Amino acid sequence: MNDRKTSDAAKTDPIRIGVFDSGFGGLTVLRALLPQIPGAEFFYLGDTARLPYGSKSKATVARYAVESALLLESYGADYLVIACNTASALALDAIRSAAHMPVLGVIETGADSAAAASVSRDVLVLATQATVESHAYAQACAAHGLRSVEKACPLLVPLIEEGWIESPVTREVLRIYLEEARAAANEAGLAPDTVLLGCTHYPLLRGLLEETLPKGITILDSAETTATRVRRDLPALPTAHASGRDADLGRCHFFATDSVDKFRTLGSRFLGQPIERVDLIDLGG
Amino acid sequence: MNDRKTSDAAKTDPIRIGVFDSGFGGLTVLRALLPQIPGAEFFYLGDTARLPYGSKSKATVARYAVESALLLESYGADYLVIACNTASALALDAIRSAAHMPVLGVIETGADSAAAASVSRDVLVLATQATVESHAYAQACAAHGLRSVEKACPLLVPLIEEGWIESPVTREVLRIYLEEARAAANEAGLAPDTVLLGCTHYPLLRGLLEETLPKGITILDSAETTATRVRRDLPALPTAHASGRDADLGRCHFFATDSVDKFRTLGSRFLGQPIERVDLIDLGG
Repeated sequence: MNDRKTSDAAKTDPIRIGVFDSGFGGLTVLRALLPQIPGAEFFYLGDTARLPYGSKSKATVARYAVESALLLESYGADYLVIACNTASALALDAIRSAAHMPVLGVIETGADSAAAASVSRDVLVLATQATVESHAYAQACAAHGLRSVEKACPLLVPLIEEGWIESPVTREVLRIYLEEARAAANEAGLAPDTVLLGCTHYPLLRGLLEETLPKGITILDSAETTATRVRRDLPALPTAHASGRDADLGRCHFFATDSVDKFRTLGSRFLGQPIERVDLIDLGG
Repeated sequence: MNDRKTSDAAKTDPIRIGVFDSGFGGLTVLRALLPQIPGAEFFYLGDTARLPYGSKSKATVARYAVESALLLESYGADYLVIACNTASALALDAIRSAAHMPVLGVIETGADSAAAASVSRDVLVLATQATVESHAYAQACAAHGLRSVEKACPLLVPLIEEGWIESPVTREVLRIYLEEARAAANEAGLAPDTVLLGCTHYPLLRGLLEETLPKGITILDSAETTATRVRRDLPALPTAHASGRDADLGRCHFFATDSVDKFRTLGSRFLGQPIERVDLIDLGG
């Protein structure tokens, strides 16, 4: 796989897009990318042996994410999407320093889309503990003149992974988190009209969120906003072009650092279609 | 720290007990060990950069646990307690092959105590997904002539780590899990009179469990049963003796592979007293 860059045929190969997440959530980003970038080949890596990143320190997350990015680079990736909010928040600079290709994080695309959507200029960000503690969303929003409230929702990922997508328990947990967020927004004098889903698991709760949030609130998820941004970036890439192939899974390669069976089972839920082959990778962790 | 075994003073040193867990839960075991083994020095390692183990594969858990065991051995541990149900279930043989000291897992001590407590000879085991899938408790119980129902409770650890110990949400999750367990027991024709808490986090929910379970059910947790067993084993160890020192934290050394601040904060909740110093360890993962 590594000989691509020295091959004469390189320029006619489809562009290779690396998609990295700590686990399965980034598959919601891949799902949005597939129809948007029909000419690309995708290499998805889930660092499932070391997930979740959302509760870990910046140094640890950066080390894990850089190892993962370099693996995708060794597979010939031309462009890298960090489809993991925690890694985007804590490790984007480290990844950009280590990798030799354009690297896109989901935080900046989220803030861009919030800037386009919000009228009140106040945004509520729902994310993992580590993403919230990094204040990466607050900084990215502030760069667009937006004010923000960041709310950590550590129980949502386990609830989604347990498959309790429409459970009354999940509804109640969401109600509690949104009530705490509302109180924090009030205290800060903010009136958010836009909710940014700052974790790639959360789009699976979009239905429940729409029922729980007041009417008129715009919900933005990383998957769609990131796919749109990748499509916009691609023409600038030296090897970018569209081959016109179908938006099927034949051009996707899946890699995981832990159980490939679990990746197939849980991953298919996030991707919205069955995943057949997953290769086990050892990152030495 | 590594020169102890070659030192002439070795035989008069206090015994060194290594206590290993993927995170903080094993601190409930250390908490029970402290008053039971007043003469020992304790080395506690939480592999917090790679937790949770409960959702990962046997191969990955074994690799992580063996690395952790060897680290504690390099610190001079004479005796090792695997205070992690998942590692005990999936990796005890691998650890015993790799380490050069007695190694005790929490599964066997749990089954021993259930055998002593149960009249109906039917036991309900609550544990993580990986522990349940290993059927290590079922096998250990069967060796005592006990029948068992094993129930995975993946949301309990995140709820406890969120601090929702007495929340109505946690009560409802517990009710659902116990109802599912009751249905499974009925179907198998079992009538458990004993509940084994097969995860070191779960003792923090003992109060809620006592309210939720029918009267007359015995609840056993790994911490107490393991501490009792260590005390029983110790006289047989070549270097074992009691120095008579107080059961304080001055003889405890804490190591973590991720944020030491988080270890201090969350760990103090499990240990029941403040932890002041934690050293960061790099296991290369």
